[in-house]
Amino acid sequence: MSIFDYFRDRKKSTPASIAKERLQIIVAHERGQRNQPDYLPQLQQEIIDVISKYVPIDREQVHVALDNQDDCSILELNITLPERP
Amino acid sequence: MSIFDYFRDRKKSTPASIAKERLQIIVAHERGQRNQPDYLPQLQQEIIDVISKYVPIDREQVHVALDNQDDCSILELNITLPERP
Repeated sequence: MSIFDYFRDRKKSTPASIAKERLQIIVAHERGQRNQPDYLPQLQQEIIDVISKYVPIDREQVHVALDNQDDCSILELNITLPERP
Repeated sequence: MSIFDYFRDRKKSTPASIAKERLQIIVAHERGQRNQPDYLPQLQQEIIDVISKYVPIDREQVHVALDNQDDCSILELNITLPERP
């Protein structure tokens, strides 16, 4: 399964878009033929830390999904940003 | 336009998947109703630095696309990883 099939499949289960400010980060690791250790879980916290430099993030508003399918690992972070005055 | 429409549209222009090891990072910033400065270009280098801690990256194999559509900014990094012995 390719990365783009994954995105297409995800669309089906996504609720109607809400007019909030939000960030979505997707890291897809396509491994080719090899069986390798997966570093996406470790990467997750570091990516959140980097983004926190630019925009305030409420850690309770970070939703993480990690999916392994065949030769593709996908880390998905959905972050709803705090309301600003 | 929602984030997921973007992914669907991208699929059409993607060449057939090649069995190489690769990483794809997509950061989508949906701004809601507000007109705000965009920090995705600055974020780009920091994300590459973070990933470099986990896997060797050849900077010449990093392809960056930045897209602004209506209320959504999308940073896309496509990285082909070096062959390993």
